[in-house]
Formats: sequence, structure tokens, C-alpha cells
Amino acid sequence: MSTKPIAVVTLSGGMDSAVCTGLAIEMGFEVAALHLNYGQRTQDKELQAFNNICEHFNIKKKLVVDISYLTSIGGSSLTDHTIAVEKNFHSDVDIPKTYVPFRNANILAIATSWAEVLNASAVFIGAVQEDGSGYPDCREVFFQAFQQTINTGTKPTTTIQILTPLLHLNKKEIVLTGDSIEVPFQFTWSCYDHSEKACGECDSCRLRLRGFREASIKDPIEYQ
Amino acid sequence: MSTKPIAVVTLSGGMDSAVCTGLAIEMGFEVAALHLNYGQRTQDKELQAFNNICEHFNIKKKLVVDISYLTSIGGSSLTDHTIAVEKNFHSDVDIPKTYVPFRNANILAIATSWAEVLNASAVFIGAVQEDGSGYPDCREVFFQAFQQTINTGTKPTTTIQILTPLLHLNKKEIVLTGDSIEVPFQFTWSCYDHSEKACGECDSCRLRLRGFREASIKDPIEYQ
Repeated sequence: MSTKPIAVVTLSGGMDSAVCTGLAIEMGFEVAALHLNYGQRTQDKELQAFNNICEHFNIKKKLVVDISYLTSIGGSSLTDHTIAVEKNFHSDVDIPKTYVPFRNANILAIATSWAEVLNASAVFIGAVQEDGSGYPDCREVFFQAFQQTINTGTKPTTTIQILTPLLHLNKKEIVLTGDSIEVPFQFTWSCYDHSEKACGECDSCRLRLRGFREASIKDPIEYQ
Repeated sequence: MSTKPIAVVTLSGGMDSAVCTGLAIEMGFEVAALHLNYGQRTQDKELQAFNNICEHFNIKKKLVVDISYLTSIGGSSLTDHTIAVEKNFHSDVDIPKTYVPFRNANILAIATSWAEVLNASAVFIGAVQEDGSGYPDCREVFFQAFQQTINTGTKPTTTIQILTPLLHLNKKEIVLTGDSIEVPFQFTWSCYDHSEKACGECDSCRLRLRGFREASIKDPIEYQ
């Protein structure tokens, strides 16, 4: 029996969430990994990345939840907005193509439900404020408010802290952090394209490659 | 084109949520009705109630979302707790048999995402504090904290108010309120049993029948 405190970590399979997972382990938590499917094109690649990262870290508690309704909500009425997002958006694979308002609140609600069931003491989310420029639910003030929602909406004996260790890092710093704690970047998937190898050209790939370049570290995944 | 402000109303098909819907209409909102499936036994009865109530009120904006993952989360590790809940639990059909921690946060997150897409100005939830005795996410302090989460996690131009008009009412008062605004109680479904007519004996039926009795109003649905 593990006597470590448990943390629910949202693990998309991208590099940010992989680093977040590594940090939770470094901090002494037993990780319970939560993966969310949005019905996105690269869903199977991301699920594979999730499973590989879990295996690497020997994570036994895993939960995969389908929240493709969020994409439907976003897609049904935000068509113009969606197009704009797809063209200009710079982010990790954590963020779906179709921008959905209040997405992180949905994710944190699911993570907190599971955390309370597991008697976990923390929820990790690899949100990066810089990536989510203009996204209100990527800001510290939002996470603070959600913390209060957890404090009031869970049992008195429950104490779940939201931890956002990447919130104020840039991609270079995330790469350096991950490298220092031996995060298996080779298993992560960031590309928006669904092909055998990452395209190297989409917004997500370019952001990732720039992070590795600035960190002077070789990205171990293969590109087309 | 409607020029009314829009409100997303969570509408399970039970009497509380039906009254909540009626109140939103009385207050001058165009209602966008959100129905959640948990994979509960009476799912089809509740969906039928939802559709009938929407038709009655001429509600055009409808969204049905499957959140059976919440039941899986609850059921997977809370077996003992679940049994206790099923035996002792008094509530409307809004509450699933399997108690899920932080359920209302999940529901409000979905409702808020849809509300922001619709440019709605309110989210109604028919939570009743009395019913949820011991449920932290049925208390006013929780809804206040979630309001702050909405304020910080949505666009600066978005102003969505959470409204909980039933929070401090008892079942008798809910019946009287619904009756005064001609809520179609005949279409509502509260019973935990999946049979042609309501059983009249489960916790939910008994609570409902007592409410009607105390209000000196005849419950228009048929019982076995």
C-alpha cells in the first residue's frame, strides 16, 4: 500500500502535462492520471502518449473521460471564432482546436470529483498563462477562484489544492524543467496533424520546437 | 428574433427543475434548456419529461449532455457510500442515485460554457439546500464561490449570474410556486423506479407526494 499523498494530474499527452506529471512525482505524490478526449482529430495519438507516459512513470490510477460535448457546445455557435482560433492559436496540445469557453472549469470539476473520491490532496493542471493569452480561464485569478469553489463545494474533511506549476513558465523553461527531472519527452505528442510523425509546422509543433531550440536541447521525437 | 435575455436552465425533468424553468420564463428570460444524462436507470423517462416540458414552454434551445463518467467516478471507489446514499437519500430526480462529489460544479461548468457561447446572462439551477443536507455543493456559499469562478474565468464582456431560486424553499413551497405560475407538473418525472407509472414509494416519490399534500394540491401524475 502506498502511503504517499495522491494527486490527480490532468495528462493530455503533450509536453506541458508530461512535465506537470513529472513535477507531481518529484513533489512526492502518487499520481492519478486523468485524460480527456474531446473528439479531436489526434485523439488516438494523445491517448497513446498518455498511456506511454503512464507506463513510464508506473502510474496505476488512470481515468479517461470523453468530454466531446464541450467541442459540440463550442462548435455549434462559435464558428467564426473557431476559425480565428485555429489560425492564430499558439498552444500545447492540451488546448482543443475548437475553443470552448470555460474549458478549464470543466476539466477542474471532473478532476476534483475524482480527487475527492480518491481522497487526493491535490489537483495538478499544466496550464500556461502565456499560451492562453486572452483566455480568462488560464489566469491565476481564475485558479484562485476555483480553489475557493473546491473549498466550499467538497466535504469539510477534504483538502484539495489546485497546483499549476507551469503557469508562469515559457516553453523554454518547461523544456529545461522537464529535462532536469527526466520527463520522457519522446513519448509526448503535441502536433495538431494526425500523421505518423509530427508535422513540425503547425502552431503547436513550432512552439514546441522553439522551446527545445531555446533550451539547447534536442527534441527526441521524430518530425516529417 | 428574440430580444429577451437568455438563461441556461438545467432541466432534469423533475419537479424542482421544472419550477426553476417556469421561474426563469416568468422573469423574462428566453430559456436554453440543458439536460444531463448520468446513465441512470430512469434516463429515458427523464429525457421524455425534459422534452415534454420544453415543448410545453416552447423552448427551442435544447442541449442534452451525457455525463455518465461522473457516475463511473463515483461508483468506482465509493461503493459503501453509494449504498448508504441509496437507502437514506431524500431528493428530487436531479440527484443521481450514485452520489458524486462536486457534482454541481460539473453541471455549472457545462452550463456556463454553453451560456457563454449563447451570450446568455444567467444560469439557473434548481438546487434545494434542504434536499442536499450534508452536500457541500448545495449550499449558498458554494454557489457564491462558483459565481466568482465564472466572473474570473469568462470573457470580460460576459456577465453570467448563477440563479438558485429554489435554494431555500421546501417541497411544499416549490409545489405552491410551480402551481402559481402554471408549471406542467403532469409532465415531470421524479420516481427512482423505471416503470410505466411512478411507484409512489421511493424516497423521491414520497418527498414529492408530501410536498403536494402539504400544499393541498393534487399531484397530476399517475401512481401505481
